[in-house]
Amino acid sequence: MKRKTVLKSGLLVLAASLGLVATSWAAESLQDVMKRRSLSEQDLLAAAKTYVPGGKRDEFIAFSSGGQSGQIMVYGIPSMRILKFIGVFTPEPWQGYGFDEESKAVLNEGRINGKDITWGDTHHPALSETDGKYDGRFLFINDKANPRIAVIDLQDFETKQIVVNPIFRTDHGGAFVSPNTDYIIESAQLPAPLDGKFYPLEEFNDKYRGGVTYWKFDNKAGLIDTKQSFSVELPPYSQDLSDFGKGPSDGWSFTNSFCSERYVGGIEKGRPPYEAGCSASDTDYLHVINWKKAVELFKQGKTKKINGHDVIMMDTAVKEGILYLIPEAKSPHGVDVTPDGKYIVVSGKLDTHVSVYDFSKIMAAIQAGKVESKDPYGIPVLSMKDTLHTQVELGLGPLHTQFDSKPCVAYTSLYVDSQVAKWNYCEGKVLDKISVHYNIGHLMTMEGDSVEPKGHYLVALNKLAIDRFNPVGPLHPQNHQLIDISNDKMTLLTDMPVPLGEPHYTVAISADKLKPAIRYVVGTNSRTLQPSPYGIHAGSEKTERNGNTVEVWGTVIRSHITPETIEAEVGDEVIVHLTNLERAEDETHGFAVSDYNVNMSLEPGKTATAKFKADKEGVYPYYCTEFCSALHLEMEGYLLVKPKGWKATAVKAEAATTYTQDDYKKELKKIADTQGVIDSVVAYITSTNYKDFPDVVAMVDDAFDQAKRGDALKSKHEAAAAKGDWTNATLWAEQVFQYQVKTADLGLRAKTYLDQNGAKKIK
Amino acid sequence: MKRKTVLKSGLLVLAASLGLVATSWAAESLQDVMKRRSLSEQDLLAAAKTYVPGGKRDEFIAFSSGGQSGQIMVYGIPSMRILKFIGVFTPEPWQGYGFDEESKAVLNEGRINGKDITWGDTHHPALSETDGKYDGRFLFINDKANPRIAVIDLQDFETKQIVVNPIFRTDHGGAFVSPNTDYIIESAQLPAPLDGKFYPLEEFNDKYRGGVTYWKFDNKAGLIDTKQSFSVELPPYSQDLSDFGKGPSDGWSFTNSFCSERYVGGIEKGRPPYEAGCSASDTDYLHVINWKKAVELFKQGKTKKINGHDVIMMDTAVKEGILYLIPEAKSPHGVDVTPDGKYIVVSGKLDTHVSVYDFSKIMAAIQAGKVESKDPYGIPVLSMKDTLHTQVELGLGPLHTQFDSKPCVAYTSLYVDSQVAKWNYCEGKVLDKISVHYNIGHLMTMEGDSVEPKGHYLVALNKLAIDRFNPVGPLHPQNHQLIDISNDKMTLLTDMPVPLGEPHYTVAISADKLKPAIRYVVGTNSRTLQPSPYGIHAGSEKTERNGNTVEVWGTVIRSHITPETIEAEVGDEVIVHLTNLERAEDETHGFAVSDYNVNMSLEPGKTATAKFKADKEGVYPYYCTEFCSALHLEMEGYLLVKPKGWKATAVKAEAATTYTQDDYKKELKKIADTQGVIDSVVAYITSTNYKDFPDVVAMVDDAFDQAKRGDALKSKHEAAAAKGDWTNATLWAEQVFQYQVKTADLGLRAKTYLDQNGAKKIK
Repeated sequence: MKRKTVLKSGLLVLAASLGLVATSWAAESLQDVMKRRSLSEQDLLAAAKTYVPGGKRDEFIAFSSGGQSGQIMVYGIPSMRILKFIGVFTPEPWQGYGFDEESKAVLNEGRINGKDITWGDTHHPALSETDGKYDGRFLFINDKANPRIAVIDLQDFETKQIVVNPIFRTDHGGAFVSPNTDYIIESAQLPAPLDGKFYPLEEFNDKYRGGVTYWKFDNKAGLIDTKQSFSVELPPYSQDLSDFGKGPSDGWSFTNSFCSERYVGGIEKGRPPYEAGCSASDTDYLHVINWKKAVELFKQGKTKKINGHDVIMMDTAVKEGILYLIPEAKSPHGVDVTPDGKYIVVSGKLDTHVSVYDFSKIMAAIQAGKVESKDPYGIPVLSMKDTLHTQVELGLGPLHTQFDSKPCVAYTSLYVDSQVAKWNYCEGKVLDKISVHYNIGHLMTMEGDSVEPKGHYLVALNKLAIDRFNPVGPLHPQNHQLIDISNDKMTLLTDMPVPLGEPHYTVAISADKLKPAIRYVVGTNSRTLQPSPYGIHAGSEKTERNGNTVEVWGTVIRSHITPETIEAEVGDEVIVHLTNLERAEDETHGFAVSDYNVNMSLEPGKTATAKFKADKEGVYPYYCTEFCSALHLEMEGYLLVKPKGWKATAVKAEAATTYTQDDYKKELKKIADTQGVIDSVVAYITSTNYKDFPDVVAMVDDAFDQAKRGDALKSKHEAAAAKGDWTNATLWAEQVFQYQVKTADLGLRAKTYLDQNGAKKIK
Repeated sequence: MKRKTVLKSGLLVLAASLGLVATSWAAESLQDVMKRRSLSEQDLLAAAKTYVPGGKRDEFIAFSSGGQSGQIMVYGIPSMRILKFIGVFTPEPWQGYGFDEESKAVLNEGRINGKDITWGDTHHPALSETDGKYDGRFLFINDKANPRIAVIDLQDFETKQIVVNPIFRTDHGGAFVSPNTDYIIESAQLPAPLDGKFYPLEEFNDKYRGGVTYWKFDNKAGLIDTKQSFSVELPPYSQDLSDFGKGPSDGWSFTNSFCSERYVGGIEKGRPPYEAGCSASDTDYLHVINWKKAVELFKQGKTKKINGHDVIMMDTAVKEGILYLIPEAKSPHGVDVTPDGKYIVVSGKLDTHVSVYDFSKIMAAIQAGKVESKDPYGIPVLSMKDTLHTQVELGLGPLHTQFDSKPCVAYTSLYVDSQVAKWNYCEGKVLDKISVHYNIGHLMTMEGDSVEPKGHYLVALNKLAIDRFNPVGPLHPQNHQLIDISNDKMTLLTDMPVPLGEPHYTVAISADKLKPAIRYVVGTNSRTLQPSPYGIHAGSEKTERNGNTVEVWGTVIRSHITPETIEAEVGDEVIVHLTNLERAEDETHGFAVSDYNVNMSLEPGKTATAKFKADKEGVYPYYCTEFCSALHLEMEGYLLVKPKGWKATAVKAEAATTYTQDDYKKELKKIADTQGVIDSVVAYITSTNYKDFPDVVAMVDDAFDQAKRGDALKSKHEAAAAKGDWTNATLWAEQVFQYQVKTADLGLRAKTYLDQNGAKKIK
């Protein structure tokens, strides 16, 4: 077998690769490609508008609800490439979410009636705001099915908190945030008794209720403060979406509804179904609430405790003048406050119009006591006539409205027409329409529900894809379509299949507002962002037994797990705390134990804990699940579960492979050769302006860190060699070489980066 | 409030939309866009090569392992858009996977030691083959952590079976299929006692073992037949990837290994870690097995039963001449048989060479009895010299090889160099190299491991993305890079972030070979593809109580669930079977029950079952989780859980909204107007060559189906009207209108499709 030293020949490859950078171009011309692929000029223009070259960045980052997947989907605009699914309500093993004890603590906050809920129906994400502008700090999302709100920290894109609504059975109108993220609104959807007890449907009007919850958000702690949160009781109209006022309407919130008929179905008993009974009247009710005054009432104790939660009851709300109703076209979906805070836009899916309410008119009517009627619960009803700014006929199935950076310009989705309408809400006229594919639900413009929409793009969240993509079986992807809104006419840019879940709403933020971390301080519990009590540094690894508990404080680093053996007896509880010692970006390690459903994701600096019962004797390998280095397959160890009371007999370890002085000498030669390669790479890098490239500086730091770890082992192989222990001398020398390989790997990666990013020679 | 009949104005919109189809183009020229977005001509060419216009299809479909996510990721090439994540080893609620009883039965097959395993570490997918060619019928995938194999049926992209390996503790070298998919190979990775018992590490050489399992696949049943499956015991060398021979090498399989040193680590005890001890020798062993003869030995009963599973022991394998070893460069990853079946390509990650073994030379050595030595277990070792065709120096960290449609052309990933090498395995020379970003693991060409590779594209499965995408926190996406291999020089086309899990290997098939279904026969258990005993047709819905069990046989269709009320008592077991009656493509309904962790996905025709214990009194709404029509929010019902022994008192139902004769007349007018719109849409569609468009024909069928459902209710509202029951008359008439809306929705969608796909007027 021909054999050369690995890295010596590597240097030749390195040199050869220089010649490959300045390459000749492909034989096929642009015209050839367009012809072969049947692309029109319009297609090419759309391709040019959406293609993001390798290594370049998207302009906006979208956070999309994941529907029944219970997750959040993160993608870039305009490339529409999905960057991450974030585990929120559903356990997700890649992230270790719901597998390590730290994340289980978050999911356990979301238990209902003492039971795990292992999914969620995520609907409406909201980004945190400062003065009504997106600030890139937090993301909130509701679970409609098991009414809950989750908090995601955008420092690390991890879920930090789940709160269960104490009085609702479903929610839909959440999450939306107040202009300074003091409060997050969550409205009930399908009415049910607030106390959680059973009442027959015959008592629907009297015992079933809706409501809205105002969750207090502690911006400093990054957590919802449930004790400072409260709800307002509402009639059993199915409350739907909500929005907070801003600017002139700051202090008020708006929640619409459907089925204000309070119809109770029963198609199996020969009654018309809910869909008929809930859409027979022409109008439903928009709920208008003075939430700042509601906060005062809550602070004054004008609440009733229901399930330990403070609720402002309807009679109090009416008496204190914080709750009004306005008729709205039936079965509406979105209620959307314009960026200037002056108008509230509502569209009823079964009407062809969008209605624009004028906040100043609403205030004038309230101040004048101009009440049209009272609803069956005594809530004052303002008239549409008194409060409307305008109504605009848009088309069939208007559903949700978002705003442009251009004044007065709005976009509304038309579900039945499968179109987006662009219109002017000041002047009340239609400007443009575009077909989408098919049956659009929500739509989304860039920062389009903040006080400063950014224009450029619109995403149509279509509910049906049907024939738009290669078929993948009866369950289809959804279709998010990217539309260019920078010109007078909207133009379709691209179709994006959604491969997991049914997103309902999406929010998008300018990419430069996000500054996520790339590593944790070593020993961090990522779910609290506090130091973990179980975090340790290199050299402090230990395993302790206490009664029937075996507890391990270990570490992971390229490419070994310390410890490499864990011993337990059948029936023991095994607790493994692991800290990832890496500082290098993207050097995540995993930890999986065969057969015990154990899996962790350990990003650089993270400390996480696996806990399980060793309930069956046997030999269970564990290993790093991330391809973290050339020897990642060797990043392994054994959990030994011995029968109760097992005693070692005097078994001598069987002979493993042994090594000679010649082997040791070969190792030393290899180390010296490799050092030569490393030195040459270092010389190359330092001959450039590499310090102008922070990513390269980080790689160089990491390379030196790896090299140092190797250097530190030099004394070990030399000590073994001094004793004539050639096997240990060879193996420790091999380990030095392993660190050299990692050092060289980083050096080559840094060199590639410099070559491809126009580094200059400086010496 | 201005109000017009919904669909009357819809017609105006319809007419207006005709003017919007022939639109003027955006103000920005291609040159403007390139300048604004800093795109080079090369970027534009790459954009043109990867952009797939909306509604058009990708050329190839890739099935990628999802790593620790436990799922399969499906994406299109060249667009790199992800089409679907398929739930395999991890429960996934969007698909109802692990939530309905039918899919739980599949996941339960994967239980180990009586415990649920709620994740998997998927590594190597394999597509079914006929005569060595991909046939688009099935997909197989292994779970490395809890050694299992799953079977996915590509009729509906659902997981149908999970089998647990009865003797291994981890696997890595699976799944790979024989040329006619008779067998699927799964090899052990980290050695452990085959009987599952504990033995101390001191007895590693004697008691710990590796092996390969040959799972018999029943192509007709679409299932693995565990009783016809068997394993071959192998030494405790960590077996790695495998491949089946084909053509001249058909009948043989190849499995490589690492750590043939049989090193046992223990860094916590001051021993060199596994990574040093497992990479100290220059070579590991390629295992060469005559699997067709092994099948005969199995059939002859020359096996030992271990945990009830048939194992051909090493001594038998040696004696019968079915097992040989050949040295291979240390720590290899892929072992890849060339499309013509003549050569076996292996590369050791710590060597710079790729080794090409010649199958005919292997056979010649075996036939000549030319054995170099025996390993410690008595297995004959053939020499590299006798069996090698050539070795080619490619660079640092060669890992996995795939093949081109051009004869003798192969591509090998270089992990440490972060490059792909293109080379000629017949002549043994390097042809080209390209840098990737960063640290590539596997790579994949189109049908590149079949007997007929398709060329065109190569995907580099890079393990680190580092700086290539917008940052999303410490846990980065992986990076799949698409490379154009149609010319002499490889060119990078695009970077694709992987948003979930760490794919290890991917396979891609020509899109036209896949013919998935878009609906099930009504009443199908999708996990068995057999009629469900619980499937029912419209009108047969019922609810029965048996002891403490409440069992519901229900249906879902736009937009109601039958029944709309389910009544139970605290402590009852509730079983809900639902059948989706839809025939329309993409008309999936969901079923979620508040607080009870119940969630189902019901694609057209599917019957699925939810089972749960109603353990707390209360009122629990249920609803359809899919946005299935304009009134999807009204697709709801109530689960009423009464206290034990609760008796209804004589509560009279409270007054709901009632309707008058005028309301009924308004409904009739609305129905008549809407019918006019529908008629005009029908006239438009039938004036074209719509029958040339199968998708439109399907929409028209669906529209008529919806219309018929409405027509069938005419007698209901007329009967109520005859009795002067204006409320029921109005509501049933409203329900007729709801069906009309759905009819019109389909008509409009069909019209849009015709407009955009060049339908011609024929009358």
